[in-house]
Amino acid sequence: MTLIDLESLARSLGVPSDRFHRFGPGRGKIDPRYLPSPSLGLSPDDSKVSSALYVLVTGMTPTPLGEGKTTTSIGLSMALNRLGLRTVVTIRQPSMGPVFGIKGGGAGGGRSTIEPMDVLNLHLTGDIHAVSSAHNLLASAIDNEFSHSNPLRIDPLSINYPRVVDLNDRPLRKVVIGLGGRANGIPRETEFSIAVSSEVMAILALAKDYSDLSGRLSKITVGANVDGTPVTARDLGVDGAMAALLREAFWPNLMATCEGTPAIVHGSPFANIAHGNSSVIGDWVALSGAQCVVTEAGFGADLGGEKFFDIKSPILGRGPNVAVLVATAKSLRMHGGLAETTAGKPIPEILDSPHPESVDRGCANLRRQIENIRSFGVPVVVAINSHPQDSQEEWDIIRRHAIDAGASDAVVCSHFRDGSEGALALARVVMETAKHHNGQVTPLYRREDSLEDKVTRIVTTMYGAKMASWSDRARKSLVVAKSLGAETMPVCIAKTWASLSHDPALKGDPRGYVFPVTDVRAFTGAGFVTVYAGDVQTMPGLPSRPAFRKIDLSPDGITRGMT
Amino acid sequence: MTLIDLESLARSLGVPSDRFHRFGPGRGKIDPRYLPSPSLGLSPDDSKVSSALYVLVTGMTPTPLGEGKTTTSIGLSMALNRLGLRTVVTIRQPSMGPVFGIKGGGAGGGRSTIEPMDVLNLHLTGDIHAVSSAHNLLASAIDNEFSHSNPLRIDPLSINYPRVVDLNDRPLRKVVIGLGGRANGIPRETEFSIAVSSEVMAILALAKDYSDLSGRLSKITVGANVDGTPVTARDLGVDGAMAALLREAFWPNLMATCEGTPAIVHGSPFANIAHGNSSVIGDWVALSGAQCVVTEAGFGADLGGEKFFDIKSPILGRGPNVAVLVATAKSLRMHGGLAETTAGKPIPEILDSPHPESVDRGCANLRRQIENIRSFGVPVVVAINSHPQDSQEEWDIIRRHAIDAGASDAVVCSHFRDGSEGALALARVVMETAKHHNGQVTPLYRREDSLEDKVTRIVTTMYGAKMASWSDRARKSLVVAKSLGAETMPVCIAKTWASLSHDPALKGDPRGYVFPVTDVRAFTGAGFVTVYAGDVQTMPGLPSRPAFRKIDLSPDGITRGMT
Repeated sequence: MTLIDLESLARSLGVPSDRFHRFGPGRGKIDPRYLPSPSLGLSPDDSKVSSALYVLVTGMTPTPLGEGKTTTSIGLSMALNRLGLRTVVTIRQPSMGPVFGIKGGGAGGGRSTIEPMDVLNLHLTGDIHAVSSAHNLLASAIDNEFSHSNPLRIDPLSINYPRVVDLNDRPLRKVVIGLGGRANGIPRETEFSIAVSSEVMAILALAKDYSDLSGRLSKITVGANVDGTPVTARDLGVDGAMAALLREAFWPNLMATCEGTPAIVHGSPFANIAHGNSSVIGDWVALSGAQCVVTEAGFGADLGGEKFFDIKSPILGRGPNVAVLVATAKSLRMHGGLAETTAGKPIPEILDSPHPESVDRGCANLRRQIENIRSFGVPVVVAINSHPQDSQEEWDIIRRHAIDAGASDAVVCSHFRDGSEGALALARVVMETAKHHNGQVTPLYRREDSLEDKVTRIVTTMYGAKMASWSDRARKSLVVAKSLGAETMPVCIAKTWASLSHDPALKGDPRGYVFPVTDVRAFTGAGFVTVYAGDVQTMPGLPSRPAFRKIDLSPDGITRGMT
Repeated sequence: MTLIDLESLARSLGVPSDRFHRFGPGRGKIDPRYLPSPSLGLSPDDSKVSSALYVLVTGMTPTPLGEGKTTTSIGLSMALNRLGLRTVVTIRQPSMGPVFGIKGGGAGGGRSTIEPMDVLNLHLTGDIHAVSSAHNLLASAIDNEFSHSNPLRIDPLSINYPRVVDLNDRPLRKVVIGLGGRANGIPRETEFSIAVSSEVMAILALAKDYSDLSGRLSKITVGANVDGTPVTARDLGVDGAMAALLREAFWPNLMATCEGTPAIVHGSPFANIAHGNSSVIGDWVALSGAQCVVTEAGFGADLGGEKFFDIKSPILGRGPNVAVLVATAKSLRMHGGLAETTAGKPIPEILDSPHPESVDRGCANLRRQIENIRSFGVPVVVAINSHPQDSQEEWDIIRRHAIDAGASDAVVCSHFRDGSEGALALARVVMETAKHHNGQVTPLYRREDSLEDKVTRIVTTMYGAKMASWSDRARKSLVVAKSLGAETMPVCIAKTWASLSHDPALKGDPRGYVFPVTDVRAFTGAGFVTVYAGDVQTMPGLPSRPAFRKIDLSPDGITRGMT
């Protein structure tokens, strides 16, 4: 393993030498306290942050294994570097759930990777562990009240704060705790979620500085007392310890791609119940020191993309100069109806062979996603993440649709096979397109709009629904959310990633349906209100052939079988 | 915060420069692969390992807050350094349970500390998190079988493998998981323990190299199939991934004391259900490079001390040249009957004032612990960890009893108040005493003795019992343990730390009682058989005023309230 000189990479990003710390081979952390604190004026006017080229990589509605957004982000960042632009790629840290489950790691693939892959995929510098500890300390503090005469008079049935673990562990979805008698507290039903779905993780990814981090943690609502008054982490006296647990987790991680491009890997919020983007502080570090920053948003442009614009951008104080929308012929064939895909099942082989008519039909999805991003006022370049089986005819169809729908261009890439070489054409188009937009974002809704109006706006303009319906439960939860101050918060839609709609079976560009809101929850610490369409699984299960079976450690200490 | 030059410390221990890695400010890890692997002959004959001075710090039966073993280990190591002996102190990593609960951190105290304290007490380099992940991955793999037609035909009622979390979380002691229908697996009762009680942690602390680590992990028994055949981590195909998760956790952590003495902080097995000593690999690194190594065993000499001799030493291949037995006047007053102490309750104030008669009576405990250590053939020096309220008369009484019971000497120390200065006299006596013993250990029992004989030997010679009684359950479990190959394993007694006996109320030197064995369990991965006397709590609860309430993070990023 060649170890990149991370110290020079940090230096090239303007990080003072005493603010970069190695955290083991191949990784380090950047203590961001050399940046001006937000209260001292870091804002869109900050010349360095606002003058850097900022590229958002997002995607069309994906197949279960994804269309290669991370690989494209990495390949594009390496290509931009080759073209002379000092570029950083910023991505989320992978959860160990998928690493040991179906999907495998999150370090890119082929010749567009972040190295060492096993370091990235397992632990990294322990940020997710720190989030888990802070999250679970709060959970333990809640239940501890019941063992000590419950001075806050917490209503045990009001508690809606799970515990977390950074693994796929199906039977923890629904549990009864506190069994075994008085010494073990009160029995109650609760849940375990995967750590990256934690509100604490969303907070880590959105916090601007330590004050903001502590403030958001203190505002986490865990339930209510018997009078219905909300109970927060601050009420339990645990917010300070939670912040202390996150002290270094707040420092963005620095790694390098296989071609030596700096990679900031930080934060890993879910892209459904949370906002699905890497950290604000990581992007600030990157924008403050690089000429160009390539960042990635989770799932399709309808999920992580929309949330990038409506949740992350307002805190960051700027938007991207250009969005890259990753598409594959395979996914377009699927949207065109050639075959169905199901999460947890292998992708049908027929989707691997060219089928121009399906691609043509499937481009409805691509067009809608392009139009959605364009509605934020940001130009779009389509990256056709090519596979050896694709046909030129398919690529031509994709390009025609893309440009017709308002994309600046659509470029075939082969960075998986060729590294930066395979993304040079894309990089040139991205640079040219980015010149013509200053990074401003036209918001989809105004903060002062009602929550109902915000939801209607998102589902009608972006998802193609004719309206939103609200279940009784959702209406009741809406009242609670408003009482917690959610009215002025941005909306975070929790829905399937497998469709623009709420229904994974609706492919392409579904129209005219009713979008069913099933529940609403204000995350008062993270500062957004999550609006659910159906059950969103926050604890994945392991498949029948889990990826962990392939992983091994050789006697000389080399990790094997990691993808 | 002054950052010690850890690179020089590593160099002074003979660690090649490419084998030392920083893991954040104030800490690093030593990749031990520069040492000869055990299969290539690292053994007691290895000249460096066997020629270093090796000091075991253990204690009398403690009060609930401990008698200052860690502080003494640190102070003594700094004093030995001042006397010109290149010394390393090796201790266990503190669990976050006590840090946020009652006891506070495990970084020493006063002027004998390891710095930075918040780094040591929270996360360190994530080893306990890695152990938790590896442990819980195996747990998830077990339950996953039931969701996929159970090809191994595991009997769900046979599973005796808990999940873990590194926090005090009382209601997780007894839980029902798998509720909510078929998609969530099968409902069953199970437990959560604190991470440091995990068999995986014991394995990390005992493994000699990666082969040994992987081999032990693969042998963890989690239950049985419907025919009664044991099911192991290897059967589930998860041992390789577990080893990969522990790849860097296996590297000993290097920090420094407040006076710059190198400190290796590695492994944190419980001292009741596990063996309670820092890692074998950490002590090998230390012994290979230093002139003197001071290590600490958990709880009293009857627990961590005995297990050091009977479990850790045989793997390490050598014993100590001298044992330091830490005693306080306060604890001796308690053993003498002046007042009772209870875990989780404040220590009665009366124990803070001199009371020579109680000390005189309480010395029965000290004498027994001295005799116990002497029975291993190792000389003993008593460290009287002084407090300002103690009287000279009390110290004289302690010294008289100590020497009469076979200790080489008893020395009053004030390292808490004075740092190394306060332990210089102790250090001189330790050096002098150590000269006369070569580090050989006379085992308490032979490996080929029956398990029953091993237990009888421990409880009659060390604990003062007249015999052991075996419950029906214990007899049944003994049969199972023997079927798992436990007959030739060393015994690990799980009992209260608050008495030499099984009963926390029996202070001083209890005699002539019956030691009740309530259960037996073979930890086939760790390689010892745990013999229980009563319920041993593996998941502590939080107190009514948890230590976490005092902890905070300042806006400039400084941890406050950590002790």
